[in-house]
This record gives sequence, structure tokens and C-alpha cells, in this order.
Amino acid sequence: MKRLAILNGPNLDRLGKREPEIYGSTTLPELEQTLRDAFADAAELTFFQSNHEGALVDRIAELADSGCEGLVINGAALTHTSVALRDALLGSKLPAVEVHISNIYRREEFRHMSLTGPACVGVITGLGLEGYFAAVRFLLSR
Amino acid sequence: MKRLAILNGPNLDRLGKREPEIYGSTTLPELEQTLRDAFADAAELTFFQSNHEGALVDRIAELADSGCEGLVINGAALTHTSVALRDALLGSKLPAVEVHISNIYRREEFRHMSLTGPACVGVITGLGLEGYFAAVRFLLSR
Amino acid sequence: MKRLAILNGPNLDRLGKREPEIYGSTTLPELEQTLRDAFADAAELTFFQSNHEGALVDRIAELADSGCEGLVINGAALTHTSVALRDALLGSKLPAVEVHISNIYRREEFRHMSLTGPACVGVITGLGLEGYFAAVRFLLSR
Amino acid sequence: MKRLAILNGPNLDRLGKREPEIYGSTTLPELEQTLRDAFADAAELTFFQSNHEGALVDRIAELADSGCEGLVINGAALTHTSVALRDALLGSKLPAVEVHISNIYRREEFRHMSLTGPACVGVITGLGLEGYFAAVRFLLSR
Amino acid sequence: MKRLAILNGPNLDRLGKREPEIYGSTTLPELEQTLRDAFADAAELTFFQSNHEGALVDRIAELADSGCEGLVINGAALTHTSVALRDALLGSKLPAVEVHISNIYRREEFRHMSLTGPACVGVITGLGLEGYFAAVRFLLSR
Amino acid sequence: MKRLAILNGPNLDRLGKREPEIYGSTTLPELEQTLRDAFADAAELTFFQSNHEGALVDRIAELADSGCEGLVINGAALTHTSVALRDALLGSKLPAVEVHISNIYRREEFRHMSLTGPACVGVITGLGLEGYFAAVRFLLSR
Amino acid sequence: MKRLAILNGPNLDRLGKREPEIYGSTTLPELEQTLRDAFADAAELTFFQSNHEGALVDRIAELADSGCEGLVINGAALTHTSVALRDALLGSKLPAVEVHISNIYRREEFRHMSLTGPACVGVITGLGLEGYFAAVRFLLSR
Amino acid sequence: MKRLAILNGPNLDRLGKREPEIYGSTTLPELEQTLRDAFADAAELTFFQSNHEGALVDRIAELADSGCEGLVINGAALTHTSVALRDALLGSKLPAVEVHISNIYRREEFRHMSLTGPACVGVITGLGLEGYFAAVRFLLSR
Amino acid sequence: MKRLAILNGPNLDRLGKREPEIYGSTTLPELEQTLRDAFADAAELTFFQSNHEGALVDRIAELADSGCEGLVINGAALTHTSVALRDALLGSKLPAVEVHISNIYRREEFRHMSLTGPACVGVITGLGLEGYFAAVRFLLSR
Amino acid sequence: MKRLAILNGPNLDRLGKREPEIYGSTTLPELEQTLRDAFADAAELTFFQSNHEGALVDRIAELADSGCEGLVINGAALTHTSVALRDALLGSKLPAVEVHISNIYRREEFRHMSLTGPACVGVITGLGLEGYFAAVRFLLSR
Amino acid sequence: MKRLAILNGPNLDRLGKREPEIYGSTTLPELEQTLRDAFADAAELTFFQSNHEGALVDRIAELADSGCEGLVINGAALTHTSVALRDALLGSKLPAVEVHISNIYRREEFRHMSLTGPACVGVITGLGLEGYFAAVRFLLSR
Amino acid sequence: MKRLAILNGPNLDRLGKREPEIYGSTTLPELEQTLRDAFADAAELTFFQSNHEGALVDRIAELADSGCEGLVINGAALTHTSVALRDALLGSKLPAVEVHISNIYRREEFRHMSLTGPACVGVITGLGLEGYFAAVRFLLSR
Repeated sequence: MKRLAILNGPNLDRLGKREPEIYGSTTLPELEQTLRDAFADAAELTFFQSNHEGALVDRIAELADSGCEGLVINGAALTHTSVALRDALLGSKLPAVEVHISNIYRREEFRHMSLTGPACVGVITGLGLEGYFAAVRFLLSR
Repeated sequence: MKRLAILNGPNLDRLGKREPEIYGSTTLPELEQTLRDAFADAAELTFFQSNHEGALVDRIAELADSGCEGLVINGAALTHTSVALRDALLGSKLPAVEVHISNIYRREEFRHMSLTGPACVGVITGLGLEGYFAAVRFLLSR
Repeated sequence: MKRLAILNGPNLDRLGKREPEIYGSTTLPELEQTLRDAFADAAELTFFQSNHEGALVDRIAELADSGCEGLVINGAALTHTSVALRDALLGSKLPAVEVHISNIYRREEFRHMSLTGPACVGVITGLGLEGYFAAVRFLLSR
Repeated sequence: MKRLAILNGPNLDRLGKREPEIYGSTTLPELEQTLRDAFADAAELTFFQSNHEGALVDRIAELADSGCEGLVINGAALTHTSVALRDALLGSKLPAVEVHISNIYRREEFRHMSLTGPACVGVITGLGLEGYFAAVRFLLSR
Repeated sequence: MKRLAILNGPNLDRLGKREPEIYGSTTLPELEQTLRDAFADAAELTFFQSNHEGALVDRIAELADSGCEGLVINGAALTHTSVALRDALLGSKLPAVEVHISNIYRREEFRHMSLTGPACVGVITGLGLEGYFAAVRFLLSR
Repeated sequence: MKRLAILNGPNLDRLGKREPEIYGSTTLPELEQTLRDAFADAAELTFFQSNHEGALVDRIAELADSGCEGLVINGAALTHTSVALRDALLGSKLPAVEVHISNIYRREEFRHMSLTGPACVGVITGLGLEGYFAAVRFLLSR
Repeated sequence: MKRLAILNGPNLDRLGKREPEIYGSTTLPELEQTLRDAFADAAELTFFQSNHEGALVDRIAELADSGCEGLVINGAALTHTSVALRDALLGSKLPAVEVHISNIYRREEFRHMSLTGPACVGVITGLGLEGYFAAVRFLLSR
Repeated sequence: MKRLAILNGPNLDRLGKREPEIYGSTTLPELEQTLRDAFADAAELTFFQSNHEGALVDRIAELADSGCEGLVINGAALTHTSVALRDALLGSKLPAVEVHISNIYRREEFRHMSLTGPACVGVITGLGLEGYFAAVRFLLSR
Repeated sequence: MKRLAILNGPNLDRLGKREPEIYGSTTLPELEQTLRDAFADAAELTFFQSNHEGALVDRIAELADSGCEGLVINGAALTHTSVALRDALLGSKLPAVEVHISNIYRREEFRHMSLTGPACVGVITGLGLEGYFAAVRFLLSR
Repeated sequence: MKRLAILNGPNLDRLGKREPEIYGSTTLPELEQTLRDAFADAAELTFFQSNHEGALVDRIAELADSGCEGLVINGAALTHTSVALRDALLGSKLPAVEVHISNIYRREEFRHMSLTGPACVGVITGLGLEGYFAAVRFLLSR
Repeated sequence: MKRLAILNGPNLDRLGKREPEIYGSTTLPELEQTLRDAFADAAELTFFQSNHEGALVDRIAELADSGCEGLVINGAALTHTSVALRDALLGSKLPAVEVHISNIYRREEFRHMSLTGPACVGVITGLGLEGYFAAVRFLLSR
Repeated sequence: MKRLAILNGPNLDRLGKREPEIYGSTTLPELEQTLRDAFADAAELTFFQSNHEGALVDRIAELADSGCEGLVINGAALTHTSVALRDALLGSKLPAVEVHISNIYRREEFRHMSLTGPACVGVITGLGLEGYFAAVRFLLSR
């Protein structure tokens, strides 16, 4: 059993409610439950969502110190603005996969750039919720 | 009676104390009381100030879910740096008016740009505290 | 009674006719009449519209020399291109409020920048025709 | 059985030979065979690699005309330079997933930008060869 | 006895643990104790670290209101992204010295720029933990 | 008979006199007469030239209001500087073809960009006076 | 009889099939036949389309060496990326007219710039298929 | 006797009234009279001021056609925005000297650039009204 | 005997014919024969020219696999646009010298930048055909 | 008698020899003698030329300390690159006039910008050697 | 006893005389004497000031060859323009600390960038003359 | 016998000592002797090295006046910063070849640009000391 954490950034608590034409109608608790079920045999998944950059940074440090073996992170808006998150990921030494539900290349130009991307092993964008599953699968396969 | 919220971002808790030559000597509680009085007949005003981007994002989501009908937001420094606030405003679907006490076009160049402006119906800058009153009046008139 | 002038720049003579989905269906004469009526007790309003940058510059100088006490100016396209208008406003020493009917932050990127904004006390954008009323109210309250 | 095509761009014929410290030691034929085997039950996979932008454009048009139902494309160097490939993808109307073996955000700055990304449903970068599998899985799940 | 505060931003709670090849192996509590001891005769030092931009802004305001006479601040990642911190420093009217452990000019280009630097009296970068001592010494000598 | 207008901007009144090595020796009245003759059977052509941005904006509005069915416009220098002209063209809802006598791509870099181009159906550049004929022919063929 | 060549670049083989809402429903062979018929008395037209930059460069050299007297070229995507095509046009010394079916000024910003435009006598953009006819007519009239 | 013209652009009609701390207290008529007197023996001076770009363009063409032998031009705000004025100067073939009363290099960055400068023989900036005298002297000495 | 290859990119097949005032009148076959003769004792030279980026990439891979010991490459237009060529050179691990006949620093600004230069040992520009000889001599001397 | 210094920067020792088609055939000693003669009654002129930035900085400091009352400086190439010269001028507190023989706005773009210009009272460019005379005259008239 | 050198660049010979409101009234010889006295027990200090970039480069090489163990350098204006100084510092392999008396982040934007900073261990800016003392202390503590 | 000069700029006096992993271990005197020997029959070589931009400018002027027939120049750091050197080369009218020992395209981005390159016939970069020999050979062959 691998210990992995799924982190979600600002506004993702409103998944399923906010702009469903972009993000779909599945809620975050539903997504988390589906992930837990899907990987019940292979991974122990921890979930965390916050609208606070600092809380995400706090959590990454805790995870790094408590045996977590990999991260799936959807930094949402913070992807494009947070050097602190980038530093937290680099400092954790944990393998991380960045996920975006919508295709960031099809949105405003400031979303094409990722400050956290270089601190991750890889990035998956535009595959909808499937991106989370692909990311977990990748971390399990390493 | 329309339900509106007045949100203030970083450092506005120090209104009246911080750089009064730019922002005047009225404190935030005084401003809030004056607004409440001025619109007592027409609007039920809620107030919120935070220096935390995440707390403002949290609050916008709560307001969107609890029957609020419009926002007046002075994002202060976050106006120019917070994609999370922009996403929160867009996700809330609430009509919002952005207010700046001083004229952002007369300050540092990085303050001329507004990340949250396109997520609002309009922006009022440079009219001092009067900007808040104009914003509420506008939301009531819609 | 305060003496104020309302200046409108290029293409605003076609208000109500041009792109009504953006600018609404009220015509400029109708707007001017409504403003005159609304502030009949407090202000003596003068109106001027021109598609000519030079005519607007001429008029601002005349107003500065003839006892005008404040300006509301919607420079329209000239907002983003006219250094001459900026210099005229600065040279007039009159308090001015810049108004845009639509939210310039939601339009083409070159409209986000305002050459005339720093020459005004403040800017109101996106509040529709209500912006003119808020501007006059602000000038009266100073 | 879904009909999908896997397209690889310049220099990927040398996979396993070229810079194995970045791209690993699996060759392209080996990768193709593994993909064919892995999805034998669900997909009919076609493979194509070329160092010629024009040949890739030709092939995408043929695929669009012959019943192909989705594309996985690693445009390699062309990702950052080929408007023709972007137009071919857009013109094909086929759902496509862009794959990069290494994390383009960790390489030269000109590789952070993708001309073809906005013409795809999504992009997977940095997951090594696993990216191809995730892309096929995603196309099958749609 | 001068009352000074030492503020540390995101990820500095992990000093000594995170990337020791860049930041060394001294932990933050150890650093704080050494500073307290070194200046026991001359300064009353207060310490604060947070990964939350808002908490740092809150604290700066409190310090400004409670007799603090100077700040040493290592804003870490926030140095390059936080207008709120810049405004808090400016609003506090306190003399501040910005410290960076590593030489920001030798790191990624986005770290060469400092939003908070102009709100401080000066900046010390690259002198390792010695930077904190030099900063305190400077504030005592003013 | 289709009603079309041919508009010429600054300095084109000096066609045939100004820099004939670039613009040729035909004068503007000669060009207008030749156009009138050439399309005598199919179009009723109106001509207007001005060195005043405002006069061109005025005229476009008049044409839009008086049954004109299409515009050929050589904005000359204003092509690269006039948002007002762009707005006038957009506001007129008339199909317009932009014409430049010389090839703007072979001149100074600031002439490569066209503010009015996106407000027109198309642009013809570098075909000399023939560009006007091609533009009229195109408008007649729609 | 003048000998002219009509060259079409990437994806134009799919004219009439690809994005007909932008490019219309006429196919390339139909367009070529219509051009041949329309100018049967005045011009001997040769046609060439390729998705390969190199093949277009090869062909331009052959045409230059075999008595061709002028080119009409729609470089499509290569317009914005191919220095090789620019050099081939310059090296051929042939008068060329660049044609774009849609108005490149109304599309993505990277399409506003033309690398091949300065190597041509002129450019026609946005006039639909009529652009090809205008280009041939212009070359015949020289 | 040499025939020269002195042209002044927007807002210079307010010389002596507008921002005297920058431009001094001499009025435009006074300046013109002093210039006429100073060069009474050597030059026949014509004066023209307008706030209208088009009127300046009109006048330059008239001067070019009526025996004028040189221009002194203070384009003021138009210096930085008017391609039309640049084209008018180039088209006139007249030797021109550009004059600015204040030092444009000490003002806003957009005033450091001159569109009309390359169309003049030379530029004098910052010498106050003396710049006009130096310019006339230079034209007389050629 | 060292095995070296001389690669020439787009339009260099027309050497001696195309723009001889820039490139001289020696043809490519003549250049190749002179190179072969000059180094007959020391090197076995292979030659390849193509207008196709893909063909050059193909050839570099073949050369890398068949015992070639060094490359001289004049990528011509592709120098400034081809990431694929850069990757091919890097992937081949062969020492390469880039040659340009004319001085790229004296031509258009986009030619000052070289995408392939960093993938070569060195670059020789502006020495005419002599550049090829110097490049071969250098590779022989290593 | 006013004490003024005329400073000339790099390559101006070769005036009259270097590129006479741009700079004319008068040598620097001839120019200096002519200036001395022309202002014999009003000014005591000192001359200095150096190709060394440091020597010019040294000299400006000496002049500032020895009663010099004004500077005419043609910094030549250093105009665009020397912050040291700018600082020397600012530090000297002397009124200075910058002179360029040719019109810097007609030359390479990097020559349009002046680092030393803002440290001078004004700038004269393009008036040939006459610029020096105008500058001295201006300093005498202050 | 450690052998250290204190290098000062252009215009610092005028310390105490030039702009004392920015740089204070202590002269360079006074500063040097105070430094020598303060570190008499621990360091053998050598001093050098020059307005010549080349002389500073010469001196750094001499110091590197003659047993110097560390540098304190205030490159002044050269900080922002001298690649030669950067290369000299890198080539010397000596630990260096860059010092600026005023806070470069509060001055013109071109002073925010440091070419020499990355060639130093660290940078101290804005601490006034105290910066030199802190730099020496740091070098002694290494 | 042709008279040629070999000029070396800042820090090249330390060739063989400074960063030998980049520049090799041959010293400048050794290089000069080897060059002198190698071309003893064909060229009279003069050598000059200076860390002073001004000294290099002085020397180029002397060489131009004393019968020198060509230059080889390694401007080192000045390549990227010295307009004075560019002007000296242009003013000398001498054919010059610029040489860089290391490949400037593989170093910091500011080294990719050459101010002096356009003033030379050609540039050789990355061929190590062999670059000097190739440059001399080229000048002899002209």
C-alpha cells in the first residue's frame, strides 16, 4: 500500500457547483470517494482542500514529514501565482503530479504558465476528473 | 431589502491609521457604520475584512450559497496578484463592483492592472470612500 | 449651484444606435436631459460631444477659463490614445472623473490602459449610464 | 473497438537511442508493441512517426477522413513551432491528447509554450512513456 | 533595549530540513535562539514565522501598534509575489531590513525582483544566516 | 446600383505629389474619377478625404445612417493609431475593405499592425491603386 | 498569355471540408478550375498545393527557373513561421501576391504577423476566395 | 529673406497659463512677437497653432505648396502619438526642426520616444523658449 | 581519414543563382567539389542539401548511426525556426559547426538568434564560403 | 566671462576623418578653435575629449570642483550605455546641454534612448556642429 | 589576519560631496580610515577606487594573483552595465560581497538589476556605509 | 606581407589562468607567439590587449591611421555592452573578424547578442583558440 495525498487548491471546494459547464457536476467529496474506492487495493489516499496558500504549504510540509510517498496537486489559481507552493513542493522532495481539470492552454494566457509545474514530475491538463486517476496510477507505477 | 456584502482585503483593517494622506482618517468600522446607516432602508449590508486571500475566497463562496445578491469588493493588494479571488468572483455568479479608494492609475504601474476587474460588473477607482456608496447605489439600482 | 461639464468623445453621439447590446438604447440627448433633470437643484451642467480630439482639447481649455468647477469625461477611444487630452486635463487644473459605460477590463487589452486616467481624480468603468450620475454626485460632494 | 492513432513527431524514431537519460531506453517499436498489446481488447491502434511536419499534417487529414476516432500526438519539437500542425488538428475535428515524455516545464523556456495544446482536449507532460497509456485510456473512456 | 521583530515567511519553518545544500542545517528555533543570545544586551527580539501571507500582514500591523521599533523580514517566496506584504510594510512606517539566506541574483530570474524591497530600508542577500545578524546590528545602530 | 463610399485618410490629398516613388503620380481626383468611371454601371460611389480623424469618424456615422452599403477605407497613418476609427467602423455595421497603396509589411514595424483591420471584412495592401478597384469589386460581388 | 502559378500551403487541400464556417464549402479543385476558366484568355495558370514547407520551397525554385512570371501564394500556417518560404520568394525574384481567405487580423495574434508578406508585392486578406481572383488580376495588370 | 513657419501643437495655445512651473509665463502671442522681432532682418516667419492633428497636417501641406523653406515644429503631445504628422513632415520634403520646451527625457517614459523626430533634421529639447530661437537660427544658417 | 558531413538547408541548392550580391556566384556543386578536393587527404566528405526540415533531421540520424565523426551545417532559414533540427543535432551527439555565408548580425533581427547554435560546438558567420573550409579544418583539428 | 567646458566622448577625436558623410569634414581642433573664437567675448571655454568613460567622469568631477559654470557634452556612444556618466553629471550639479551631431532618432533604435539626457537641462540632436554653438549660447543666456 | 580589498567604482571618490542627501557627508578617505581602524585586529585592508572600468578589472586580477582573500565591491554605476566587471569577479575566484549605500530597489528601474550580483556571494543594499562593515564582517566570519 | 592586428578585450590577459575549464590553459603570450609563428610568411601581426574600452578604441583609431589592413577582435565582455567599440570599428573602415573562444550561444542570454558583430565582416564563436587562426586566414584570403 502506497501512501499518497491528493491536494486541491482555491475554489475546488465548489467543484460541481462552480461553472459546471467547465468543471462538470461531480462534487469534490464525490470525486474523493471515487478515488478512494478505485485505488482501495493499492493506495492509502489522504485528501486536503484549502483556499489558503499557507494551509497548502503547511500541509505539504506535514506530509513530507509523515511518510507520504507522493502528491497529486491541483493548485488551481495558485498554479500561476504561488512561488510559496513551488518552494514547498521542491522542499518536500516528494514526487508530485500536477492536475488541471480544464485545458489551461485553452484559457487566459496567464494560465498557460505554471510556477508549480517545474516542481512536479509531470502535469496533466484538460482530461477532466480523469486527470486525478491518471496521476494516482502514475505514482503507483513508479 | 437587497442583501449585499462589502468585502475589504489586506491592510484595509488599518484604514484611518495607515497612510492617512492617501486613504483619509475614517476608520473601517466608521465607514461600515456610515454605509449601514445610509442604506438602512434599502439594503441589508454584511461586512467582511481579511488580510487572508483564502478567507476572502471562503467568504465569497459562503455568500454565494446564502442568498447574497451582490458584492462590493476592495481587494486592495490582491487586486493585482490574486487569480484565486478572480476565480471566486467568477464562480459566485454574483454581480460585483470593485472599489479602490485611491486612483490606481496614479500609483505604481503594477497597480494599473486588475486581475479581479474582469470578474466584476465594473470598477470605481479614486473617488475615496464615496466609491463604496456609489457601488452600493449601483447594485441597488440594477 | 456648481458649474460642471459633461464631455463625451468619439462615437458617443451614436449612443443608443451603435452596438446597443454593449451600450444600451438610451440616446445621448436623452442621457443629457436625464442628467440635467436629476441634478437641477445642485448643478449647472454643460454638455459637449465631439469626435475630434482637438475640439475636446479646445473645449477643456475654454471651460478652464470660464469658471467651470469640474468635469465628467468619457474620452471613449481617445482614453487609450490621446496624450493631448491628458495634457489638456492636467493643464486645466479641474477635478475630473473619467467614465466608461462598459467595463474596459472586459474588452480588448489595449483598452485596459488609460492615458487620461492619471489626469483625473478617479475613474468609473462598467456601471453603464449610472457612471455619469455617480461622477456628478462625487463632484458635487467634494 | 475504438479506432485511435498514435502520432509521433521529429526525432522520436530515435527513442531509446537519443539522450536515454532523458527519454529512457525503450525504443519506439517496443513502445508501439506494448501499447498495442495493452489495449488489444478495446482499441485498434494505428501508429505513425515522421520527422516531416508535412507528413504529419497529411496523415492527420487521412485519419480524419477514414474513421479514426481519436489521436494521441507527441509533436515533439513541432509542438512549439508548428502552426500547420495546430491547424491540422483543429481541422480534423478529432479529439486529441498531446503527450510529452519529459516535463516541458523543466526544459528551455521556449518549450513551455505549446502551439498545438489548445487544439487538443488535454496535455500530459513528464509522465514518461506512461503518458501514452494515460492518453489512450482517456480517449477510450470518453 | 530596542524592541525588534524577526519575521520569516513561507517554508522557513523547515529551515535546516529543506534543501540544506542551499539553506544550511541550522533550524529556525536554533537560529532564533542564537539571535536572542547574541543581542541579549541590546535588543528585545520577537519572532514570528508563517506560511500565510495574511498572518504576516496581521502581525506587521500588530507590531506597528505595539511599540515595535524595527523589523527584519525574510519574506521568502512572498518577496516576489506579495503586494499585500509590501503595503503592510509601507503602512507600518517601521524601518525594515529584508534578508535572504541565498543570493537571489543567482537563482531563477523571477527571484531577482523584489516587491517588498522598496518598502524596506535595505536588503541583504546571500550572506546566509549571517544576514539576520547584520540586519539586527544595522537596526540597533540607527 | 450599390451605394459605396471611398474614404481616404491623412496626407492622401497629396497623392501624386507626396513621395511619388512610393505612391505613384496619379492624383486623388484622378483616382476618384477613374473609379467612378470604371464602376459607373454597378455602383454609386461617394468620395471623402480628410486629414482629421474626427471628420472621418463623423462621415462614417453619416454614411451608416444614410443608406450606404459598403466602405473602402485607406486610413493611412490612422490605421496604426486610431481606436476611434476602429470603433466607428464597428459601430457602423457596414462591410468595409481596408486598402493600403504600398505594402505595409515592407515599411516601419509600427505599420505592420492595424487597429482598423479587425473592424473590416478584409485588407488589401501593396497592390497600388489597383487595391481600390479590387476592394470595390469585392463589395459589389458580396 | 502570362504564365502564373497559384501555390497553396498546409491544410488547404482540405478546403471545403475543414472548418467550412470559416473557409466556405468550395473545394480546392473547384477553386482551381474556376480560376483556370476565369482567366483562360489571359493567363496560363499552374497549381500546386502541399503540406510540406520543403515542397513549396522546391516548387518556387523550379518556377523561378522555368519561365513563370508571377505567383499567388496562400502560405496558410507557414505565413507565420517559415523563414524558408520567405527566402525562397525573395530568391525567386518573382512578383508574388500573398492571399489569405479569412481576415488574419481577426484571428489569433500570432497570425497578424507575416514573415512572407515583406517578400511579396502585396497581401490580400479576408476577401475569401475572391482574393485569389484579385491577385491574378493584379499580376496580369502589371 | 527666408520663409519659415513656426508650428505649435495641442495645448500650446495655453502657454504661460498652463503649468507655468514647467513652461514659464510667456504667452504664445508674446513668444511669436519676440521671434518675429528677433529675426525681422533675416526671416519672414509664419505662425500657426492648433489643437487639431488634422489642422496641422493640412497646414504643413499648404506650406509645402506655397514656398515655405523650413519648419520649426513643437508637436507637443502629438510628437508621441501622431503617425499622420510624421507622414506630413516626410511628405512635405521641408527641413524641419522639432522643439520641446521641457526636457522630454525627464518626463514620463512615453514622452522619450518621438514619432516625428525621424522626420525632422534635428530635435531640441529642454532649452525652454530658447529652443525656438536656436531652431530658427539653424534653419537660417543652412 | 575522418568522416565528416556537410549539410545545407533551404534554398542553398540555389547558391550562385539566388541573390548573388549576397551569396556570391559559386554554385553548390562547385563548392562541394572544391571542399572535396581541398580535404582529399584528410577527410571523407559526404554532402547533403534539402529544403525539407524533415529530410535534414532524417539525415542527421542516419549519419549519427553510420560512423560519421562530425558535421558542418548551414541550416539557413531553419537556423532561426527549427527546434527539430536543434533536437536532431543534440540527439546525434556529433560535434557540429554551424556556418552562415553572410553575417547574420547584419541582417533582419530575427536572424540574429540561432536555435541550432547552442547545439553546435561553434558558429562561423559572415566569412562567405571560406566558412565551410574553416569549419572542416576545425573538425579535423579536434 | 562665464566658464564653460565642452566635453566630447568616444571616437569624436576622429571628427572629420570618421564617416564624413555623417559627421562632416571639420576636425575636432578646428571645431574647438571656431567655438573659442565665436564666444571669445563672453565665455572662457575649456575642451576635453576622451575615448575613456572613466576619464570623462574624472574630468566632470574636476570641473565641478574648479569653478566651471556649465557643460556642453557630446557623450557619443556613451550616451546610450554609461550610467557612470549620468551619475557624474547629476553629482556635479552643473547645468549641462547634451549635443549630438547627427539626429539620433534617425539611427539604430538603441541610439534613440539617452541615459545621460535626463541628467542634462536639455538635448540638441541633428543640428550638426551648429548644435555646439546653440548649446553654448543657451548656457550663456541662462 | 585576513587580506581583504575594498573596491569602489565610479563617482565614489566624491562620496561626501556628491548628493549628500542620498550618500551622507562622510568622505571616502574617512570611510576607509574608519574601516581600517575598526578591523585593525582581524584584517589587512587594501583600498582602491577608480572611475575606470578597466582599472577595476586590472586591480581585481592583481588582487587575485597576490594573495587577497576576499573583496568588498561597490561597483556603483558599473553594477548595472559592466559585463567586464562580472567576468573579472568570476575569473578571480575570490569571495566578494557587493555593497550599495542607497537601496537600489528604491531608485530607477535599471538600477534594480545587477550584472555583478551573481558573481558575488551576496549583496547588501541600502544600509548606508554600515554595508561596508557588514560585508567585511561577513568575509571574516567565513 | 599583410599588416593585421589582433585585439583582445577585458580579462583576456588572464587567458590560461581564468576559468581554464572554459578557456583552456594556453596563455595569451603563448597564443600570440603561436599566431606570429604560424603566419610568419604571410602576415605582420600586431597584438594588443586591454581591459579598458577606451584603450581599445584609441588603438583601433591608431591602427586605422597607420596602414593596418585588417583586425581580429575578441571584444570579450565589451562585445555585449560597448557602442563605443562598435563605432570605432565602423569608423576605422577596416575589415574585422570577431572571435569568441567559447560558444556565446551556450552562455547567458545577454551574451547571444553582439553590438560589435554588425561592425565586422564576420564572427567566429566556439572554436576555441582555433578561431583566431581561422580569422587571420580569412583576412589573408580576401
